[in-house]
Amino acid sequence: MSREQHPTLKEDGQSILILDQTRLPRVAVMLRLTSLEDAAHAIRVMQVRGAPLIGATAAYGVALGLAEDCGDVRLDSVIETLAATRPTAVNLHWALARMRRVLQKSAPATRRDIAWTEARAIAAEDKAANAAIGSHGLPLIERIREAKTRSKHPLPQEGLTSSPPPPGGGGREGVRTGCDIGAVNVMTHCNAGRLATVEYGTALAPVYAAHAAGLPVHVWVSETRPRNQGLLTAWELAEAGVPHTLIADNAAGLLLMQGKVDLVIVGADRIAANGDTANKVGTYLKALAARAHGVPFYVAAPLSTIDFACASGAQIPIEERAAEELGAGAVPVANPAFDVTPAALISGIISERGIAAADALAQWRP
Amino acid sequence: MSREQHPTLKEDGQSILILDQTRLPRVAVMLRLTSLEDAAHAIRVMQVRGAPLIGATAAYGVALGLAEDCGDVRLDSVIETLAATRPTAVNLHWALARMRRVLQKSAPATRRDIAWTEARAIAAEDKAANAAIGSHGLPLIERIREAKTRSKHPLPQEGLTSSPPPPGGGGREGVRTGCDIGAVNVMTHCNAGRLATVEYGTALAPVYAAHAAGLPVHVWVSETRPRNQGLLTAWELAEAGVPHTLIADNAAGLLLMQGKVDLVIVGADRIAANGDTANKVGTYLKALAARAHGVPFYVAAPLSTIDFACASGAQIPIEERAAEELGAGAVPVANPAFDVTPAALISGIISERGIAAADALAQWRP
Repeated sequence: MSREQHPTLKEDGQSILILDQTRLPRVAVMLRLTSLEDAAHAIRVMQVRGAPLIGATAAYGVALGLAEDCGDVRLDSVIETLAATRPTAVNLHWALARMRRVLQKSAPATRRDIAWTEARAIAAEDKAANAAIGSHGLPLIERIREAKTRSKHPLPQEGLTSSPPPPGGGGREGVRTGCDIGAVNVMTHCNAGRLATVEYGTALAPVYAAHAAGLPVHVWVSETRPRNQGLLTAWELAEAGVPHTLIADNAAGLLLMQGKVDLVIVGADRIAANGDTANKVGTYLKALAARAHGVPFYVAAPLSTIDFACASGAQIPIEERAAEELGAGAVPVANPAFDVTPAALISGIISERGIAAADALAQWRP
Repeated sequence: MSREQHPTLKEDGQSILILDQTRLPRVAVMLRLTSLEDAAHAIRVMQVRGAPLIGATAAYGVALGLAEDCGDVRLDSVIETLAATRPTAVNLHWALARMRRVLQKSAPATRRDIAWTEARAIAAEDKAANAAIGSHGLPLIERIREAKTRSKHPLPQEGLTSSPPPPGGGGREGVRTGCDIGAVNVMTHCNAGRLATVEYGTALAPVYAAHAAGLPVHVWVSETRPRNQGLLTAWELAEAGVPHTLIADNAAGLLLMQGKVDLVIVGADRIAANGDTANKVGTYLKALAARAHGVPFYVAAPLSTIDFACASGAQIPIEERAAEELGAGAVPVANPAFDVTPAALISGIISERGIAAADALAQWRP
């Protein structure tokens, strides 16, 4: 990543600076958080968002919330405040549990300094994990590129689409898309790019790795209603110079049917022990369509997103967010923020440890 | 339908009045069309929309375009202008072919009057066809209602959901939806209600029939990005007093997984001879999810929507609309307006003639 990009999170040992994601893509504004309340608010209203970045911000939030001499009562209260901000992303709870574990065994007078140190470690580890996710995911893109280069008719791939044959497919008149037929066309959902993390992203880490390696790659970016996080993805891909095309979420099935998608990679908010994956609502529909057309569907997430205490997707709470997010006035609204993709639809899970089958996560159990 | 509702199309033999759907749901404004150009513009910019209403409007557009003494050259030119407005909806071409057939065998001096008469017939037949679709579809809703009433645990239906079990399902804390557990929960997409037709609607005709019969029915209304026609559906359901809940398109998979949907009914813009169905983009994703959870998926459309000259979905042109519809500024955009649902995913097609299996449409061939 070039140095000119806006960091998602910085700190100076007294406060943290976050890129206010509620104001993107219109303006890139850094926001200073100086208190527990600032940090909890930033997570709740999604000034910071994305499971890994929420985890890191919550860790710094603990540091911001601790007095110089901090007893157990205050420590518990700080952690509870942050834990209550959002229900689905497990990284939040993972980061808070780690902070609690480290701080409980420390003397009250040292806790504040130790909290800063531990939050820094969490942020640094997120960065390293995502870089590793990029390295492990890169070969998936390389292999598709090699297959396309070998093929005499590199695209849209015959055989990938099932009945009916692609309507309006290929180079048909009237179909104007950003699909780059020579490139590897990756579809993603929501924003699981660097804006969702401390750096590099999760789902986009392999894309950035491919781009850095000079492989032609093009990203289908879902708008991601109701909060339009796809615009964040388009913003960061533009900043990084990666070709991309925005689509309505509804268009994913058609593009897969038309053979215009080589690979789907999404992030995760919580992965159950059996591989069922909660991610931004709409992910499940893409997984069903990818399966229908034989297109690989991968989930990219650090180990901290795997909740081994959660046996299956049925146990993952689904956050219901405000009706106002749909902007439809007085119309009755249901607004679940996540859905669950069954492990059986997932080709593999990419973590900092490598790629595992979704039903074989036990190998990574700590 | 009560008399207070705004009609979608009226005429006085000199001009036609349409309900301007680009201004709904904010304001209900009737717009007077007095020329061929007015009619072509109204279809192109979607002041009128919905395959059946486009067909009727185009028929009246021919009448508006004809001089008192109208030769073949002008007739051809009028029809070509209207045919060029939108590519996917076959009703447009069906209505224009019918107008041409009738007018070609008429004397030039009589054509204008005959055009008005034929357009009126097309509009009246649309109304009658949709009323019949309502009658034929009603038993689908009645049977589900009876099954729910018989069941000791009427909802969410066990056995409907496949692995993983419903996350955040049932009455769980934090899940606030308009799902009415005693009612028959129908999911639709886009607007295939009375606003898409001269009256009664296609996909919503069975819903209105059930509501009129006193059956409790609740409609899941997809937002339908990028043009948000779901807001039209919510508007007309509110006007008719039918309970409904708006959702982001992305939420359809989760609701189906949670057993909160009993039946999916959508409209169609063109049905191929083999039953493959082009409808508003995003329909295909709902069909895949309905199939994954054993929920019936029906297409409701008049016979005029079936294109027997089109062998399969692969031959249906997919309209690509302007990038501006996504409202994302300078971001590269692809914006296909329709997708194709394979016949194999369709439980049945409801027309004015009854319900047929999607692969058995030959029985309706004229």
